[in-house]
Amino acid sequence: MTRIYEDDSLALHTDLYQINMAQTYWAEGLHERKAIFELYFRKLPFGNGYAIFAGLERMLQYLKDFKLSESDLSYLQNELNYNEDYIEFLRNLRFTGDVYSMREGELVFGNEPLVRVEAPIVEAQLVETALLNIVNYQTLIATKSSRIKQVVKDDNVAEFGSRRAHEMDAAIWGARSAIIGGLQSTSNVRAGKLFDIPVSGTHAHSMVEAFDTEYEAFHAYARQHKNCVFLVDTYNTLKIGVPTAIKVAKELGDSINFIGVRIDSGDITFLSKETRKMLDEAGFYDAKVFVSNDLDEYTILNLKAQGAKVDVWGIGTKLITAYDQPALGAVYKLVSFENENGEMEDTIKISGNAEKVTTPGKKDVYRIIDRATGKSQGDYITMSDEDPQMEERIKMFHPVHTFISKFVTNFDAVPLLTQVVAKGEITYTSPSVMEIQEYANNNLNLLWDEYKRSLNPEEYPVDLSQKCWDNKMRKIQEVREMVENFLQR
Amino acid sequence: MTRIYEDDSLALHTDLYQINMAQTYWAEGLHERKAIFELYFRKLPFGNGYAIFAGLERMLQYLKDFKLSESDLSYLQNELNYNEDYIEFLRNLRFTGDVYSMREGELVFGNEPLVRVEAPIVEAQLVETALLNIVNYQTLIATKSSRIKQVVKDDNVAEFGSRRAHEMDAAIWGARSAIIGGLQSTSNVRAGKLFDIPVSGTHAHSMVEAFDTEYEAFHAYARQHKNCVFLVDTYNTLKIGVPTAIKVAKELGDSINFIGVRIDSGDITFLSKETRKMLDEAGFYDAKVFVSNDLDEYTILNLKAQGAKVDVWGIGTKLITAYDQPALGAVYKLVSFENENGEMEDTIKISGNAEKVTTPGKKDVYRIIDRATGKSQGDYITMSDEDPQMEERIKMFHPVHTFISKFVTNFDAVPLLTQVVAKGEITYTSPSVMEIQEYANNNLNLLWDEYKRSLNPEEYPVDLSQKCWDNKMRKIQEVREMVENFLQR
Repeated sequence: MTRIYEDDSLALHTDLYQINMAQTYWAEGLHERKAIFELYFRKLPFGNGYAIFAGLERMLQYLKDFKLSESDLSYLQNELNYNEDYIEFLRNLRFTGDVYSMREGELVFGNEPLVRVEAPIVEAQLVETALLNIVNYQTLIATKSSRIKQVVKDDNVAEFGSRRAHEMDAAIWGARSAIIGGLQSTSNVRAGKLFDIPVSGTHAHSMVEAFDTEYEAFHAYARQHKNCVFLVDTYNTLKIGVPTAIKVAKELGDSINFIGVRIDSGDITFLSKETRKMLDEAGFYDAKVFVSNDLDEYTILNLKAQGAKVDVWGIGTKLITAYDQPALGAVYKLVSFENENGEMEDTIKISGNAEKVTTPGKKDVYRIIDRATGKSQGDYITMSDEDPQMEERIKMFHPVHTFISKFVTNFDAVPLLTQVVAKGEITYTSPSVMEIQEYANNNLNLLWDEYKRSLNPEEYPVDLSQKCWDNKMRKIQEVREMVENFLQR
Repeated sequence: MTRIYEDDSLALHTDLYQINMAQTYWAEGLHERKAIFELYFRKLPFGNGYAIFAGLERMLQYLKDFKLSESDLSYLQNELNYNEDYIEFLRNLRFTGDVYSMREGELVFGNEPLVRVEAPIVEAQLVETALLNIVNYQTLIATKSSRIKQVVKDDNVAEFGSRRAHEMDAAIWGARSAIIGGLQSTSNVRAGKLFDIPVSGTHAHSMVEAFDTEYEAFHAYARQHKNCVFLVDTYNTLKIGVPTAIKVAKELGDSINFIGVRIDSGDITFLSKETRKMLDEAGFYDAKVFVSNDLDEYTILNLKAQGAKVDVWGIGTKLITAYDQPALGAVYKLVSFENENGEMEDTIKISGNAEKVTTPGKKDVYRIIDRATGKSQGDYITMSDEDPQMEERIKMFHPVHTFISKFVTNFDAVPLLTQVVAKGEITYTSPSVMEIQEYANNNLNLLWDEYKRSLNPEEYPVDLSQKCWDNKMRKIQEVREMVENFLQR
């Protein structure tokens, strides 16, 4: 099929309704009014006790480049029949707002703003879809990766799910997110190149089959690659594979670095134990056992409990697709909007489901660190004109079961949102991916162990300030009155 | 973070082990030997009775553009320390092979070749990861979409999952695959532009909140957009939302095209019935009820069984992420390789799991159509030098339970693999996406209903020819002998 329009910008990577709403705002003269949107998810994925934020680097690149191309504009005008004036307006549109965001590698939780966009409503609206698309996926994978890391502890883990990823972007950004979450390497070379992250990989069954025997295949590989991990399950792991790997390693001695063997099928507990025994008996105490085969944190936990002798885990499908929960449900909600007098007015979306009612107003998030233990007491959401850093004592209460509350003193209130875009200019420099990984890892030390359990962790407190809560109740009351007035007319 | 290397080619979108194996083949002088790889999955996704092939267009673009960029080469040389000679070899590498593939929209099944790559082994090996990455995802989504289409029957369905897709490529290629599977439109404007597919969408809650009242918001929208679908659940669906939509529609009369209302939360069965009643009572018999809210084929089936009055379904997360099974497990296996005498020799990969043993040799696939009924009797896999089109009678037998067999006569054997690349040149022109959709839809008529049930369908026969089977048995025997010889040494 020949393409009519080039793929030359991401500015149309949005839902059609955004373009329609933008047109309405523009035609009604509302488009320059300032809107504040907050991006957040309601529920942690995988039943985990925390999530790890990722997606900021890609988001900043997208906002910086935001500009409809001529081919975008032709498409909108010729195929979708938007009028010329609106097209002209879109032609000059750039992102000129302010953005506040969690840092990548930050521990984040449900119902707290991860990104706050303050911009003319038309701009804030048009970028919604892409921001969600980016943050939802990358945060999901960083979180899944961290779950795996919690289970493997100090073992090495390699990500190699590209072939099962949801198309190409997911393969590379998923690989990056996996490293942020704590994994050691990816198999995807393009991801290694773009993000300066470690890559790993040796050979596949096809290479063994391309030679007459496994013995010749291993020898040929060793001639080219000093560091050798031999894949031993092409024909029969214990009868031929491991013995051949050992034979070749002995023959080549110090001329190669025999790192170990990889097993990709069969029962991992049994095969890894037998393999370990054979390697030890041959004197290769330092040779490592690599395994792969549809692994995730649940299987690893079970294999470890059975005493599997594994040094390096290869994780594919289950991580890169977040198999057991392939979507994070982050949303992007209008919380405040400039009225005709130039004042900001808080907005609310009501729902039959109580947890879907939005929390109105421009807000900030603080992590409340207990000075005595150095551990977090929970996250504290305030109206942006509050400053818990100046307070001696704060009251933290459960946003649903409000009678559950505690007074906290002797704390540090660490602000979590950082300004990353000011008037359309990027003001934030992303650290390297390995620095982000370290940041995430250090952050985990702030959490008590009960929040880090992979099954049924305790619920980490994310509480509203009294002012925030009162504001929400007031807005709910206003809507109630509006509904009543409407019905009485 | 500043990038050291540009993202200027997809040729490095591969696993590191492919680059390592390629180096081994090259250094050992095997790299120009012809290899035949077949791409196939073992098990249908979602427990469905068929899958719908997608991914060919993207695959062809990738193969056509296959060329390592200078930044790719610098990365390999400087960061991964590959030697200069190998880098020089890679610099000149292009895809020069032949490719045979299913057409997009083709019904496909487990254990039959979907794509056959015949190329110098080094080329065939390097493209593996990307081909799997593309075909696995696109085929998965086209299949999920078709399942939804089977349940909604003639209702209209809109795809709008971009915000939950796994990064940007998944959003657009997933949208295209959803259309192939039978859906009517996508919300993703970039996908609409690139693939010439219908886009749809109206407005969100934020637009309602940006005006003082729902009434003003609907009016403002209607002033700009002749075709109106009003979202009615921002404050209260039945008390304010629907009455306001009706009021505005009455006031504006023929000056707009009141298409209907959209409900995005709450109980869909109840709300849709009440809404239908209110629309009918107001005389808007043609106005449609649009619904969305975490829908998939299972919820739709239940809502329909309860008599929900829905005309248009909006499907997001569950389709674009293939939520209930987010990965198709297609693999890419070496089936034949040129030996030192220039003859092709079939290869096999043995596994403890019987279903993971590969079927050796270059193969073709035919759909066996019964001339009397016009329905398919099953798919028939042959060695590529067989031609069932010339046979009067074929024996089809179950590849696992071989005693289950049938003789088929009075059939047409329709070859399913088409040559799409010849000596590196693309020889196939993709139809438009809408033509592909029609092709898929027509193909479904070849299947008896028992294969199209969304729950527990019958197993569609995918059988090996006798020759194919005998060849597999012979290769298994050869490997057995090899293992025994090894052990006796």
